[in-house]
Amino acid sequence: MKKYVFGVDIGGTTVKLGLFDVEGNVLDKWEIPTRTENDGCNILPDIAESIQEKMKQIDDDAVIGVGVGAPGPVDGDGVIHRAVNLGWGTFSVKETLEELLHMPVMAGNDANVAALGEMWMGGGRGYKDLVVVTLGTGVGGGIIIGGKVLTGSTGSGGEIGHIHLQDGEPEACGCGNHGCLEQYASATGITRLANRRLAADDKASALREGDVTAKAVWDAVKAGDELAIEVAEQFGAYLGKGLSVIAGVMNPEAFVIGGGVSKAGEILMDYLKPYYDANVFHGCKDVKFKLATLGNDAGIYGAAKLILDK
Amino acid sequence: MKKYVFGVDIGGTTVKLGLFDVEGNVLDKWEIPTRTENDGCNILPDIAESIQEKMKQIDDDAVIGVGVGAPGPVDGDGVIHRAVNLGWGTFSVKETLEELLHMPVMAGNDANVAALGEMWMGGGRGYKDLVVVTLGTGVGGGIIIGGKVLTGSTGSGGEIGHIHLQDGEPEACGCGNHGCLEQYASATGITRLANRRLAADDKASALREGDVTAKAVWDAVKAGDELAIEVAEQFGAYLGKGLSVIAGVMNPEAFVIGGGVSKAGEILMDYLKPYYDANVFHGCKDVKFKLATLGNDAGIYGAAKLILDK
Repeated sequence: MKKYVFGVDIGGTTVKLGLFDVEGNVLDKWEIPTRTENDGCNILPDIAESIQEKMKQIDDDAVIGVGVGAPGPVDGDGVIHRAVNLGWGTFSVKETLEELLHMPVMAGNDANVAALGEMWMGGGRGYKDLVVVTLGTGVGGGIIIGGKVLTGSTGSGGEIGHIHLQDGEPEACGCGNHGCLEQYASATGITRLANRRLAADDKASALREGDVTAKAVWDAVKAGDELAIEVAEQFGAYLGKGLSVIAGVMNPEAFVIGGGVSKAGEILMDYLKPYYDANVFHGCKDVKFKLATLGNDAGIYGAAKLILDK
Repeated sequence: MKKYVFGVDIGGTTVKLGLFDVEGNVLDKWEIPTRTENDGCNILPDIAESIQEKMKQIDDDAVIGVGVGAPGPVDGDGVIHRAVNLGWGTFSVKETLEELLHMPVMAGNDANVAALGEMWMGGGRGYKDLVVVTLGTGVGGGIIIGGKVLTGSTGSGGEIGHIHLQDGEPEACGCGNHGCLEQYASATGITRLANRRLAADDKASALREGDVTAKAVWDAVKAGDELAIEVAEQFGAYLGKGLSVIAGVMNPEAFVIGGGVSKAGEILMDYLKPYYDANVFHGCKDVKFKLATLGNDAGIYGAAKLILDK
């Protein structure tokens, strides 16, 4: 009999759901709204209802269980420790959803779960020790060691966006600290670096016309814009050094780069690799740099893998 | 029947050996010279002979096996990838010693194995996610996740002495890079920081008399020497920030500080903690800082634990 799992990725606006076979083929995927009102008390019941509806189309006994990624620290027991975007406090996502669905559930942090998805069916295929770096509005991370997510002792494993890289940074990061990787390597960070560079003097640049965004910076870099290239060098220096430090701690086989910024493509690697190579411990030089391939579906893939591996 | 294991810690000058019961009590410990001549071809036979000699005193069947720590990158299969101090190239320490002894052997990197020892019977007792930081001539590290050593994909996991912390460092680290943690937080690093500070101006200091060593610096700090305290602040800034980065990657429960420098005692924590707290991701703030307690015996304890956990 064919077996199935559900993968669920809870975001602040929508919940993505996917039905997978055990080989990692997505058979169906859909979304429902995330109802964050009343401390998000409807979110898990809405998910349960949506899954039960879908299960009418398949044999009940064929479903192995449900994996869930949620935007907050989730410990190894499936307990989330606050998810401000959802209005959630601390409770067991795993147990709550198991009671609603009467089937096995596994839960993890959304970035960690997405990393598992990229390892299983995305840019990290074939690797078991890898770091998925998500360069979006912020910088997220997911670390996989021996094929398993590194959760960390309090669910904060892989929070690589907030490793300290720069002394004397005057602006505060969203986390409250100063000089975090996220302040330089996220889409927001690249925009900030570009605006600082533009303000420094009157050097001509395509970036002086139109909105300064991460995409505009990378488009300008590809067009040979000198000022944009200086910004890309700064980005590469921060990210390359940041990844070299992560490698010194855990010695991965591969880094997989995803998130909106990664749409710029392989050119990102051209700017970060020289700084990685110059600063990393020699035993960690032979690492692969890959682009993520699953986009916004990484979360549902990883959630499905989480329950398959339980 | 009582069961036993042997723990072996191979150093460049001596090999330490210990006989342990399964509860972690050391029943006997001794040393033999490390014969590094002829590419170190005698080292493992010497160890085998010494163990066989000791086994005459106990029941053969009571011995579970032998754990070995060696000074080089050792992968998950017990293969060492060059150990320059021993004259060794790449070969399976595990299989070679198993053939000599006809019993199970496990092998790991010496720093990683020592970390396992501190977790089992030393300063890290009670923790399963921890980082052992050895501040000696260099800075070594061992990372334990879920009670298991983090080996890394090529045996370079936990090489935290060589994470990059300082741009623009003019002197080279032993690894060839510039600005590694080891250049500021090792005994040699502290001495270097002190000599730089002494050369900067003529400020009075007890360090101007006698040899400038890490011990002299900490003795002067304890005596209230202002210049030495400035050096301790620099040391604390580098180590505190370095540990904050490691925490951002793997979110440990505890850091255990060992090595010669740790003989200065709890005062080390007074200097590093403020910098850790100021730079670490908030989810990793509740970490414990402990001193290592096993000293030079951490390696044999950890080697014994390695074979017990096999």
